[in-house]
Amino acid sequence: MATAKLSGFPEWLPADRAVEERIIDLLKHTFELNGYAGIHTRAVEPLSALAKDGEIDKEIFAVSRLHSEGSEKNPMGLHFDLTVPTARYVVENAGHLNFPFKRYQIQPVWRGERPQDGRYREFIQADIDIIAEDTLPEHFEYEVPLVIVQAFDALGELGVPPVKVVANNRKLIEGFARGVGLENITAVLRCIDKYDKIGPQRVAELLQEEAGATSAQAEACLKLADIESATTEFADRVAALGVSNDMLDEGVEALVKLIDQAHAQSPGSVVAQLKIARGLDYYTGTVYETLLQGHESLGSVASGGRYDALARTDKRVYPGVGMSIGVSRLMSRLIGKDRVLTATREVPTAVLVAVTDEETRAEANSVARSLRERGIPADVSPVASKFGKQIKFADKRGIPFVWFTDGESGHEVKDIRSGKQESAAADEWLPPAADLWPQVVRVV
Amino acid sequence: MATAKLSGFPEWLPADRAVEERIIDLLKHTFELNGYAGIHTRAVEPLSALAKDGEIDKEIFAVSRLHSEGSEKNPMGLHFDLTVPTARYVVENAGHLNFPFKRYQIQPVWRGERPQDGRYREFIQADIDIIAEDTLPEHFEYEVPLVIVQAFDALGELGVPPVKVVANNRKLIEGFARGVGLENITAVLRCIDKYDKIGPQRVAELLQEEAGATSAQAEACLKLADIESATTEFADRVAALGVSNDMLDEGVEALVKLIDQAHAQSPGSVVAQLKIARGLDYYTGTVYETLLQGHESLGSVASGGRYDALARTDKRVYPGVGMSIGVSRLMSRLIGKDRVLTATREVPTAVLVAVTDEETRAEANSVARSLRERGIPADVSPVASKFGKQIKFADKRGIPFVWFTDGESGHEVKDIRSGKQESAAADEWLPPAADLWPQVVRVV
Repeated sequence: MATAKLSGFPEWLPADRAVEERIIDLLKHTFELNGYAGIHTRAVEPLSALAKDGEIDKEIFAVSRLHSEGSEKNPMGLHFDLTVPTARYVVENAGHLNFPFKRYQIQPVWRGERPQDGRYREFIQADIDIIAEDTLPEHFEYEVPLVIVQAFDALGELGVPPVKVVANNRKLIEGFARGVGLENITAVLRCIDKYDKIGPQRVAELLQEEAGATSAQAEACLKLADIESATTEFADRVAALGVSNDMLDEGVEALVKLIDQAHAQSPGSVVAQLKIARGLDYYTGTVYETLLQGHESLGSVASGGRYDALARTDKRVYPGVGMSIGVSRLMSRLIGKDRVLTATREVPTAVLVAVTDEETRAEANSVARSLRERGIPADVSPVASKFGKQIKFADKRGIPFVWFTDGESGHEVKDIRSGKQESAAADEWLPPAADLWPQVVRVV
Repeated sequence: MATAKLSGFPEWLPADRAVEERIIDLLKHTFELNGYAGIHTRAVEPLSALAKDGEIDKEIFAVSRLHSEGSEKNPMGLHFDLTVPTARYVVENAGHLNFPFKRYQIQPVWRGERPQDGRYREFIQADIDIIAEDTLPEHFEYEVPLVIVQAFDALGELGVPPVKVVANNRKLIEGFARGVGLENITAVLRCIDKYDKIGPQRVAELLQEEAGATSAQAEACLKLADIESATTEFADRVAALGVSNDMLDEGVEALVKLIDQAHAQSPGSVVAQLKIARGLDYYTGTVYETLLQGHESLGSVASGGRYDALARTDKRVYPGVGMSIGVSRLMSRLIGKDRVLTATREVPTAVLVAVTDEETRAEANSVARSLRERGIPADVSPVASKFGKQIKFADKRGIPFVWFTDGESGHEVKDIRSGKQESAAADEWLPPAADLWPQVVRVV
């Protein structure tokens, strides 16, 4: 078999997957404490639901039967996020769901981007969304980023650095752009979205090239994009730019409320940053990004926003708000070259039962069974080699204990780290709690 | 947005997903108790690794960039099982893995089959495999089905019926076929594999049409296929057919050992059934299927076998043995029209904090935060409607408790099932343990 490393499709070694599983478990736990129910949607969507001549199109992976005869009736693609599938799921199952519907979803998504640091073609996202029928109370826009902050706080016990959520409002940018006389709002948003990648100078040029701005209009937009504030005083700085527009006022008011409410519940966790535009075109109000402190160069590790028209039928709308944590992007930093986290062992096993000779394997099996029945992960040595080799087998995997069925005093268990060996009964002995399961720990 | 139900791509409602998650957790726990480490592989493989002009080819979903310019350098497909990806993962990471490598893997797989009862185009499999370097001790062939039996025993606490593993050996069928003078072994296996679907009469005809058998040869094969036994006496019944062949003897001997050893460790759990052939072409020795008692019509819910040549390089071979539980197939029966399992509520929330009016939402938020900090899943009412409506909101979702911040004695909590309401402090009150999280229960 040929090996086939595919760039952008990360796969972790077992110990690193244990780190990822632990991260996912902590996120799930936080989401569930906050009342979000877990769902899982299929990997594919009809292409018509994914591709809309938007910027994401060129990143879509199409899926078709290898030996399909002629053209497919339902051309499909792999989902590029979990928001579009959830919107479709909500519309399809509306009659069976209770609204507002709070769900979390942790699954891979696929984008045919050029792979680079923290950017993959297949990556795991952990999403929360709240979707309402007809109207979405604005307090949900304050809730979502605070749950995300809580989720990262939960990861803090592993040594993951804290985050800062930065927020803006699409109406604020759009209203401002209209207020200075610009009309191609999609282009304006696309240009401003590139602020961190290409810098203000180049954004100013792009605004002129692609959004039809004069240099004065471009300069005004940049002044807006430069504003960042942990308090509601950002509103005064916007007002000082002297642009007048109703939608701008609406956006400023909404963002003021968000910063105010978030501050009341969790001081300093959400900050206004007016250069945030978000690439996906379905956001209509608040938009969020999230920076991992000390790893700002990684880009946003949790993003999202409010979308009013994504899920709708002829008769009903289902407005929503949500954020998505980039689990794989986070992993790239946590287990990457500046490794932050590791697992204490690469197998779940706490005890390896040594096999004296193949004739007595049954006795070793019986010890392992007895340990497992009491919730202790146990394995049996694959070969009845010399005990030194069996201990080495355990040591290489980080298994802390080796069990012997024929020690001087009968059954004995050895802590191979300390070398201490003592008699033990398979229906009584317990390892220290910290050794029972592998732990995820910070690398010192 | 148009809804887009795709046949064969199941999606569960939140309460049913809770059932699936619970099943997955119990399987994981069993696998980990037995020392299997969890891994996750990418969804796609190079088409060259998937498509080999075998029977599975026509079921493969190809994946390509939607707007790829010209032909792809690396044509890819979605994996149709988790065995082929694991074999590739092992070869790729051999230098970083310790052998024998025991891993479990729970992920979706995709097959473009015609959807039918329990058969989907996207479905979740839960696999265990043991892969060795150079040689695989045969005791692993006894271990794998016994771990699968344990896994179903663990599901038994939910009310999932027990299973019977039926086993055969590819060498036994192949040796027998050669012994009666047949040579197109692939065709013989393919015909016998259809035994349960089309019945013995039709298999006899197919053996003549497709495997070049005479009617006497076909009859001999059917006599073999008819043999089933919970003990090693099946060997006498094979001998009584009077066919002589070295490979047959080898296969019989291996199967005798398996039945013998499995019986010693878990009496009656593994049964010899000589019609088992398994469709996938990489098995070389023992093959397994698994029947859910009382739901035999569902087909096998856990299958697998030994494969000696799937993972290999020019220099090394990595023989393996494994089984795969069809989680989605199981779900189709457990939550389908004869619903067996359900969750006690559709949200994680144990307590809904009522909101007296929007001005005091902060107080409700603070109660919820306090409950969550003590590990109690809590949510806040989305609208400050009449309390009756807020209680109804909880009731519809199965949330057992509603919290009021302005009861007669101050804070009070109501069990909405009994109607009992009592004063409570947010930093002290605890729900009964059975109400803390949703439970998966058998439908009576």
